Amino acid sequence: MDDTATSTNLGETTIDVALAERGYHVVIGEDLLASAAGRLKALLPGARFAVVSDSNVAPLHMGPLKESLEQYGLFLGSAVVAPGEASKSFPVLAKLCETLLDLGVERGDCVIALGGGVVGDLAGFAASILRRGVRVVQVPTSLLAQVDSAIGGKTGIDTSQGKNLIGTFHQPNLVLADVDVLSTLSEREFRAGYAEVAKYGLLGDAPFFVWLEQNWQGVFADETGKRRHAVETSARAKVGIVVADEREESGTRALLNLGHTFGHALEAFAGYSDRLLHGEAISIGMRLAFTYSVERDLCTPDDAARAEAHFKAVGLPTDIATIPGDKPTPGELLRLMAQDKKVAGGKLVLVLVKGIGQAFIEHDVSMEQMTDFLKRECARR
Amino acid sequence: MDDTATSTNLGETTIDVALAERGYHVVIGEDLLASAAGRLKALLPGARFAVVSDSNVAPLHMGPLKESLEQYGLFLGSAVVAPGEASKSFPVLAKLCETLLDLGVERGDCVIALGGGVVGDLAGFAASILRRGVRVVQVPTSLLAQVDSAIGGKTGIDTSQGKNLIGTFHQPNLVLADVDVLSTLSEREFRAGYAEVAKYGLLGDAPFFVWLEQNWQGVFADETGKRRHAVETSARAKVGIVVADEREESGTRALLNLGHTFGHALEAFAGYSDRLLHGEAISIGMRLAFTYSVERDLCTPDDAARAEAHFKAVGLPTDIATIPGDKPTPGELLRLMAQDKKVAGGKLVLVLVKGIGQAFIEHDVSMEQMTDFLKRECARR
Repeated sequence: MDDTATSTNLGETTIDVALAERGYHVVIGEDLLASAAGRLKALLPGARFAVVSDSNVAPLHMGPLKESLEQYGLFLGSAVVAPGEASKSFPVLAKLCETLLDLGVERGDCVIALGGGVVGDLAGFAASILRRGVRVVQVPTSLLAQVDSAIGGKTGIDTSQGKNLIGTFHQPNLVLADVDVLSTLSEREFRAGYAEVAKYGLLGDAPFFVWLEQNWQGVFADETGKRRHAVETSARAKVGIVVADEREESGTRALLNLGHTFGHALEAFAGYSDRLLHGEAISIGMRLAFTYSVERDLCTPDDAARAEAHFKAVGLPTDIATIPGDKPTPGELLRLMAQDKKVAGGKLVLVLVKGIGQAFIEHDVSMEQMTDFLKRECARR
Repeated sequence: MDDTATSTNLGETTIDVALAERGYHVVIGEDLLASAAGRLKALLPGARFAVVSDSNVAPLHMGPLKESLEQYGLFLGSAVVAPGEASKSFPVLAKLCETLLDLGVERGDCVIALGGGVVGDLAGFAASILRRGVRVVQVPTSLLAQVDSAIGGKTGIDTSQGKNLIGTFHQPNLVLADVDVLSTLSEREFRAGYAEVAKYGLLGDAPFFVWLEQNWQGVFADETGKRRHAVETSARAKVGIVVADEREESGTRALLNLGHTFGHALEAFAGYSDRLLHGEAISIGMRLAFTYSVERDLCTPDDAARAEAHFKAVGLPTDIATIPGDKPTPGELLRLMAQDKKVAGGKLVLVLVKGIGQAFIEHDVSMEQMTDFLKRECARR
């Protein structure tokens, strides 16, 4: 393999999401947008396509996709929302649904979600409720979306009570992950997405975490094969978990929430803003999950230290104190954690770890234990 | 059978909705509300219940249901919306979802929809998207809801483009149809619901239509056995169609839309108001479907005349001219019909009839043919 020839075409990788009549492919490759329409026409004969994107992504990537669809006479039009978590709201959802109806989306047609996690969650949700469900194709443009949110059919919006509290399970008919588009991300966005890549190692694949410890600089620098390997390994991990537990019923899928109950609370505190990106919040959250697991004698201090050292090496935050501006109190964080979906019978449900690559669901975390822990963490500098 | 002893307890009738893992029972009986909690606790162990109703129904029927649930410690609280179609909107949905989250509805809990079609559609939709789907039990209190909308899992809200354009398929875990509550309906509401009862005869059960021609007065007067027979026969017909075609894919379920494309357009024109109730619009719509079928030589004039005569006998409207206030133009109606969901490839999809009890789907209705027909109908006095 030639590590310097970044333009080498590695071909396409197809991962099968084996969910019977809801099954589909995740295709990972290069230059996929400009040739999308031919593929879509073959996959969904008779369907026409409406593209949903945001005002950051549309100027960069809408062009080739639209041209490709127009060439085949399959382009219904586009809807562009404001970037950022604030678009995952009822008012934006309502507006988007009405726009898609105005574009003439009928039952046999398809919505394309072109963007990061916000666009994927919002457009996927809109597709799932438009005319009681039309098809959706996810075209993720952020690292986070390519390795996580575009795969698995979770859609949703936020309410004043918390994140993703309203939504559906609505599997896409195809996920098209064009790794070329990742070169348009800012370093901060890429790094935030990387937190979810590292998560797959930490929750269930220790050898992958070792590989990341050794190769993360190549992943960031887009050395041929390394970035692609990280995306593919992560996407395969996500697919495996989704196939094992599509609707988060057995507990397997819940492992993906490693760091997320802490992380969602921190994001909520920071107002879902640029102050703290999702991946940054998850990075802090995963470090907290490791430290809390050590305190409960579930995990060795060495494994926790390795996880923390890796986040620090790549430049991801690991401490509550690093959040810019005012800091949350332990009480605020606990209240926000308790509002997260992962609560059952008044006890917090947390993903904890027995070591690197060994996450599990702990149903018995009392509010008292968590308060003590958060007091120490909020004081940590 | 003693036709005068209206208090005779006929026992419960259970209809099995055989949809495998989404299967459930429709229970039809008397005095079901006050004993609901024991049944619900056995059916959904561990679940707690939040009741959604409207401000017409809640004062009449919330009491016994709430008391029953409180007795078992299973009552999370209630949410009461304004009555009428206007509540099937994004803003009311958003408010309802937030209220249900505030009441503490968690993933294992259940929403109870206590009301007519509006409450059932709205609360069912909210349940289907709350925390990506919680359970719902339908407790229909109108004739229309008991024989039609509470069964089969269709949920939805309206947009400026039309009715039920946004929604989900979300089967309930139980339908509890207490025929006692029908005695609290006004005669006009009961009559409007009766249009859907007659629909089952007209679309696929000629002997039932004959029975209705002979016994409708007993159904209206609540003669023992007759009202119950009409509700049960209708509910069984609905269940049979839903089991044959849960997601309206094969065309069987679409037969339930007999009169509905016309009817929805008339309702939209009248502003979904008391000016024209849903069942009244459907009555006019079914008469139009019969007349149009006669014009296309599909149905005998005799069958169309019998259908029209029956609607007139029970006091249901059959003509566009009977709508109070200003009348729609043919162009307005056509535009509203084309905005209905039942459009494919630019052609209207209409349910037509080959006779009483012989409905079928016609995919090839051109806009020109329909314009001519509507011109004559709008002029009919």
